[in-house]
Amino acid sequence: LLSKQTAKPKEKISIIIGDYGPMWVYPTTTFDCTVADPKKGSKMYGLKSYIEYQLTTTNTNRSVNHRYKHFDWLYERLLVKFGLAIPIPSLPDKQVTGRFEEEFIKMRMERLQAWMSRMCRHPVVSESDVFQQFLNFRDEKEWKTGKRKAEKDELVGSMIFSTIEPEGPELDMIEVEQKCEAVSRFTRAMDDGVKDLLNVGQEHWKRCTGPLPKEYQKIGKALQNLSLVFSSSGYQGETDLNSAITEAGKTYEAIATLVEEQPRKDLHYLMETNHEYKGFLSCFPDMISAHKAAIDKVKESDKLVATSKITQQEKLIMVKRVSTMSYALQAEMNHFHSNRIYDYNSVIRLYLEQQIQFYETIAEKLKQALGRFPEM
Amino acid sequence: LLSKQTAKPKEKISIIIGDYGPMWVYPTTTFDCTVADPKKGSKMYGLKSYIEYQLTTTNTNRSVNHRYKHFDWLYERLLVKFGLAIPIPSLPDKQVTGRFEEEFIKMRMERLQAWMSRMCRHPVVSESDVFQQFLNFRDEKEWKTGKRKAEKDELVGSMIFSTIEPEGPELDMIEVEQKCEAVSRFTRAMDDGVKDLLNVGQEHWKRCTGPLPKEYQKIGKALQNLSLVFSSSGYQGETDLNSAITEAGKTYEAIATLVEEQPRKDLHYLMETNHEYKGFLSCFPDMISAHKAAIDKVKESDKLVATSKITQQEKLIMVKRVSTMSYALQAEMNHFHSNRIYDYNSVIRLYLEQQIQFYETIAEKLKQALGRFPEM
Repeated sequence: LLSKQTAKPKEKISIIIGDYGPMWVYPTTTFDCTVADPKKGSKMYGLKSYIEYQLTTTNTNRSVNHRYKHFDWLYERLLVKFGLAIPIPSLPDKQVTGRFEEEFIKMRMERLQAWMSRMCRHPVVSESDVFQQFLNFRDEKEWKTGKRKAEKDELVGSMIFSTIEPEGPELDMIEVEQKCEAVSRFTRAMDDGVKDLLNVGQEHWKRCTGPLPKEYQKIGKALQNLSLVFSSSGYQGETDLNSAITEAGKTYEAIATLVEEQPRKDLHYLMETNHEYKGFLSCFPDMISAHKAAIDKVKESDKLVATSKITQQEKLIMVKRVSTMSYALQAEMNHFHSNRIYDYNSVIRLYLEQQIQFYETIAEKLKQALGRFPEM
Repeated sequence: LLSKQTAKPKEKISIIIGDYGPMWVYPTTTFDCTVADPKKGSKMYGLKSYIEYQLTTTNTNRSVNHRYKHFDWLYERLLVKFGLAIPIPSLPDKQVTGRFEEEFIKMRMERLQAWMSRMCRHPVVSESDVFQQFLNFRDEKEWKTGKRKAEKDELVGSMIFSTIEPEGPELDMIEVEQKCEAVSRFTRAMDDGVKDLLNVGQEHWKRCTGPLPKEYQKIGKALQNLSLVFSSSGYQGETDLNSAITEAGKTYEAIATLVEEQPRKDLHYLMETNHEYKGFLSCFPDMISAHKAAIDKVKESDKLVATSKITQQEKLIMVKRVSTMSYALQAEMNHFHSNRIYDYNSVIRLYLEQQIQFYETIAEKLKQALGRFPEM
């Protein structure tokens, strides 16, 4: 907290005051990164196999290859460097067994993609050396050099705040503390809300892919079976009814399939978004702790000055640093909120759209089945 | 089987040959009977209470009152008289506890109504003295007299066949046996089919009124809770999103109610119809046994004639009686099939119509919820 080390001019991170308060400076051109084309590679004459993904940066259209463990390296670097100022969500889980299975590779790729897009959208992370280098190295040598450089970076942990330059006036400590409390309260409440939704969603997923379609299948089979029995009556003039009942039965079997496949089309995305946010939110306790520790230090700084443990000058630097931390937290929260609003708006819309289509498809299928019943 | 007693002319039951084979003669005017207006009555100075229903016959528009135990008396009389020729379905279950509860009274009345309508629609049962008397007595005295008369009726059990007069030629024993076998096979298969559908329906009912709406409610609550958390962010410009999420949550709560109430609107009728048919079908084993016993008697009749146990004349009467039984069975099956086709067509149509409306209502509600989300 007392460090006086100043960052190289290149490493300055600015905070400006926008309509919604402190904000990061957003780069004028943005980019995304696609993660695609998983390929099995091998090392040590085929003794070790791994999956390599192709990462293509949208603004340069150039590609690099990375394995999961490289992503993991990047995650560690970002966490060490920015973790006290910016929530860096975890990567999708490591997994030992079944990691060459198609379904697993597809799911991991989808999540790595989401993670990379998320990082590309962050104005500070996306512009950092380590991130840029991860996407833009030209050859193995450049990658190795960049890697070593990132690992030697000293502007990490709480040092990151020494590189941040807010444009506003120094904040008063009461405001700093209130802002910190508000973020703590909000993120804890949202964490609960997100976990609640994830639990409900998981339960619903199980029902929709388990007992519910089985039941529709049973209804379908029972109707078809009844039609078969009816056909054996030997009574004339019921052919139309019986084929209609058979169709109704088949319709319920089709509904079973629709029900079973639906969660992939809607609940999946709702779950993924909430899963991502759960990842973000789990970063806040550490961030908040660092902030609170710094605030506590400032609070006792008068005593330290009085007992000559620190100078008045040093105290002022501490106060300024805490103010910077608060600016950073507010800038990050504004980034977080605007993303959150966009993400939840998109994903709930998608969910509702898909649900509407689902119910309309079922109604349409049932109408067709109904149309086959004879008028009596 | 050997009885020579001939019925009074009034009691003759004719069978004619129609397009679909042997058939009962349908009366030119039909009637139905409404069971309504359940009233609590009491006897013995209020010591014994009971529920009395008002039965109104549609062709005369006259009403009589009956208690459940009167229906039970009628059921017993019809079973004793016609039970070997015509399936007489059981009444709704007796119940000792809670029999004055509104819900129970309503359900019982609905089932007594269905049972009475079923009996009114049967050309033989509806025209019988005992049934007519049950609906048309003028006072307590007439009711008592009719009751005593019915209880003394001797044309019951296998004697009923002595009152039946088919217009066709005597049937050959091989055909009789085949028809009986076919009815046995069909009714057993339909019994399985109906029970299967009842089981599936019951399971589905439980899910639709239990865990499923609870889950939709949880989804609704989770969304509303998330919106509440979002509203506490202090970030500006998310009011529209948050009220949209709240509405989406409320929509899922409304869907929970729709899901929970739906079985009453569709599955209920499918279950009731199948329940009624289960009642019919449970009568067939006894009917089939009586037929098979008669057929077996005829089969050994040559031996009985040879050993002078019966005369040739008696044998011929037996053969004729079995032929009559077969005519009756065929006439009854034709009645059964035409009712079955009508009933299942109606009830599955109703089920599908209600299901379509259900899914369309949900889609409509979701569309309204979607419409509240802001464009971004």
